[in-house]
Amino acid sequence: MKVTVSRKGHFNAAHRLYRKDWSDEKNQEVFDKCSNPNFHGHNYEIIVSVTGEIDKETGYVIDIKTLKDIIKEEVEDAFDHKNLNLEVKEFKNLNPTAENISIVIYNKIKPRIKPDLDLEITLYETPRNFVSYSGN
Amino acid sequence: MKVTVSRKGHFNAAHRLYRKDWSDEKNQEVFDKCSNPNFHGHNYEIIVSVTGEIDKETGYVIDIKTLKDIIKEEVEDAFDHKNLNLEVKEFKNLNPTAENISIVIYNKIKPRIKPDLDLEITLYETPRNFVSYSGN
Amino acid sequence: MKVTVSRKGHFNAAHRLYRKDWSDEKNQEVFDKCSNPNFHGHNYEIIVSVTGEIDKETGYVIDIKTLKDIIKEEVEDAFDHKNLNLEVKEFKNLNPTAENISIVIYNKIKPRIKPDLDLEITLYETPRNFVSYSGN
Amino acid sequence: MKVTVSRKGHFNAAHRLYRKDWSDEKNQEVFDKCSNPNFHGHNYEIIVSVTGEIDKETGYVIDIKTLKDIIKEEVEDAFDHKNLNLEVKEFKNLNPTAENISIVIYNKIKPRIKPDLDLEITLYETPRNFVSYSGN
Amino acid sequence: MKVTVSRKGHFNAAHRLYRKDWSDEKNQEVFDKCSNPNFHGHNYEIIVSVTGEIDKETGYVIDIKTLKDIIKEEVEDAFDHKNLNLEVKEFKNLNPTAENISIVIYNKIKPRIKPDLDLEITLYETPRNFVSYSGN
Amino acid sequence: MKVTVSRKGHFNAAHRLYRKDWSDEKNQEVFDKCSNPNFHGHNYEIIVSVTGEIDKETGYVIDIKTLKDIIKEEVEDAFDHKNLNLEVKEFKNLNPTAENISIVIYNKIKPRIKPDLDLEITLYETPRNFVSYSGN
Repeated sequence: MKVTVSRKGHFNAAHRLYRKDWSDEKNQEVFDKCSNPNFHGHNYEIIVSVTGEIDKETGYVIDIKTLKDIIKEEVEDAFDHKNLNLEVKEFKNLNPTAENISIVIYNKIKPRIKPDLDLEITLYETPRNFVSYSGN
Repeated sequence: MKVTVSRKGHFNAAHRLYRKDWSDEKNQEVFDKCSNPNFHGHNYEIIVSVTGEIDKETGYVIDIKTLKDIIKEEVEDAFDHKNLNLEVKEFKNLNPTAENISIVIYNKIKPRIKPDLDLEITLYETPRNFVSYSGN
Repeated sequence: MKVTVSRKGHFNAAHRLYRKDWSDEKNQEVFDKCSNPNFHGHNYEIIVSVTGEIDKETGYVIDIKTLKDIIKEEVEDAFDHKNLNLEVKEFKNLNPTAENISIVIYNKIKPRIKPDLDLEITLYETPRNFVSYSGN
Repeated sequence: MKVTVSRKGHFNAAHRLYRKDWSDEKNQEVFDKCSNPNFHGHNYEIIVSVTGEIDKETGYVIDIKTLKDIIKEEVEDAFDHKNLNLEVKEFKNLNPTAENISIVIYNKIKPRIKPDLDLEITLYETPRNFVSYSGN
Repeated sequence: MKVTVSRKGHFNAAHRLYRKDWSDEKNQEVFDKCSNPNFHGHNYEIIVSVTGEIDKETGYVIDIKTLKDIIKEEVEDAFDHKNLNLEVKEFKNLNPTAENISIVIYNKIKPRIKPDLDLEITLYETPRNFVSYSGN
Repeated sequence: MKVTVSRKGHFNAAHRLYRKDWSDEKNQEVFDKCSNPNFHGHNYEIIVSVTGEIDKETGYVIDIKTLKDIIKEEVEDAFDHKNLNLEVKEFKNLNPTAENISIVIYNKIKPRIKPDLDLEITLYETPRNFVSYSGN
């Protein structure tokens, strides 16, 4: 019996959409106000969803406290109150679109959970814009 | 790497559940107070979700501004502050249940996005009632 | 020790902003798309707030079940799945703006609670537009 | 054309995570503060999602009033204002983790809907922790 | 220039409405299912609002981190995953209605903030029921 | 009969808490991670509340479309996708705490509404932290 267990997290960060290998004009043209060189920011809400068999012993798929700690270590401590472009190494050469942020988070959390568990990341950039990624 | 990108929209409309080819009594019997001949209404919340490969150039599956504009043109401008039964041509002969509204919206938006992108429509009729349709 | 006790309710209704004593043109000019003759509608959310001394016996300002029943009888049963202009007698000659609806609700609920309790009505017409009225 | 129809419900209950066949120490060690012998509690929010073909006659997958009634009878009347461990027979010998509660609810609702409809249960234990189960 | 600064907190607890000096029958009659002897529970959401002059130096009324820590110490650490009736000393002889809980929280937090700051406590017992108390 | 009419708005911005006349060390000491020199950011949600007599003619305190336009011009166009410290003139020499942002917004909107209307600004910096200011 497979169940999906989800836990929400939160971080506030500055970013801009930007490719180093493009001119400022090209960045501005493609990414518009999202490429403001002085940055803008978001309250990112994240949902981490883990799917797998229920452990007969505990009745858990994963201890939600464990999941909460993983989110804290891999996401909140790493991204909160940071400038994603300047201070988070995964975005040194990667444009921090919501899509790319969700993949980076997936890749950070996947090795922290058991290999037979499926993982999905949902990332709210604003209350009206969000993305999800499940490793496919 | 496939990611799902979602954008929320909103419209307020009047409607009644009603089939022209049924008597008023039959409509009343089946649809109850939802078939009030004087109409009732909702704040419909819509989530449009597009799934596809990330564009390597931009880091986008779809530019969220493009998606926002499509929702405005196909849904908000077409349905907002309207009477769905009387003023929206798709419901001239189609009962505007949440299920049918979600299919109509799917069919209006699908031709506006690239053919290799998957589409799902989630429609909240009230905060407690909602439907989703993904073209299958 | 005065405490405010609040209870949420909900109703779905059709309406249009409209004054009988104005021409259709004048109504259209002043109320714009909100005056659509075919009506539009909303999921109205209501918060009824009652302020007063705590009863030493029960620890209640008002039994929330009593308040829930009053909201059901005076608001939900009276307005839900109705056309406010055509079917609710209070709006026969009163324009059903959010402001006026909140006053009508206040006047219906006030006689149902003890005279020494203060009352405030908050009415959400949409998640982004709301009004409140406390009898002053 | 398959559509998913969802309806939210709500119940407040006390519980503790606990296995009868484990010592108090073992329960405490594994379930930590969630195993408090004096219980704690939650406002559980539930989403019941039913997927199937639209009925050509009605435009419904399932009448949402029917679904609302099933949720009331099988979940809200059965669990609301109860102690899950002491008063709900399904948890006499089953640890009431969110995972297990979602499966119990699935098993109660599945026989109440037509066999060709798919069912998914999403259960919010808190606004930040939730699970979902779809019978697989 | 006076500004109100608010911070949300959260705790999960079991309780029952109950007066020791009343018979079980009387408790049951007055408090109905809320007096279930086996307890029920809630995810309590709390908003702590502090009003005062802005400090010219910092631009703060109160450092939100300080307020967060006070809520953690006085409310979350004291009430979370507890049985309010059995384990929280303030309710040994006080019926834990939402009204009384809000007053207890007010009285715990008031001495922790500067005397010239006004305080208001808003407590959500469920998403639909809430109370507020500001010391008057 | 006085009613309060409220409208929500939204903007995404980068900022840091910072006083030019303090050393970096002092800023860091007082404002901690909120003073990150590379900035962080938020999805600010704003509620603009206007209180006054209902206009007998229209049933409005203020036309909500007018209020929506004022919020767009004075707040959203001015602050959205901006760096508050570097690009918004009001914060050239003013620390952009939530408290100060709410006062700046109040001062921008007040001259745009009729003098006999009262104004209150509520600003959510995150879903858990918010402030309100009403000109006193």
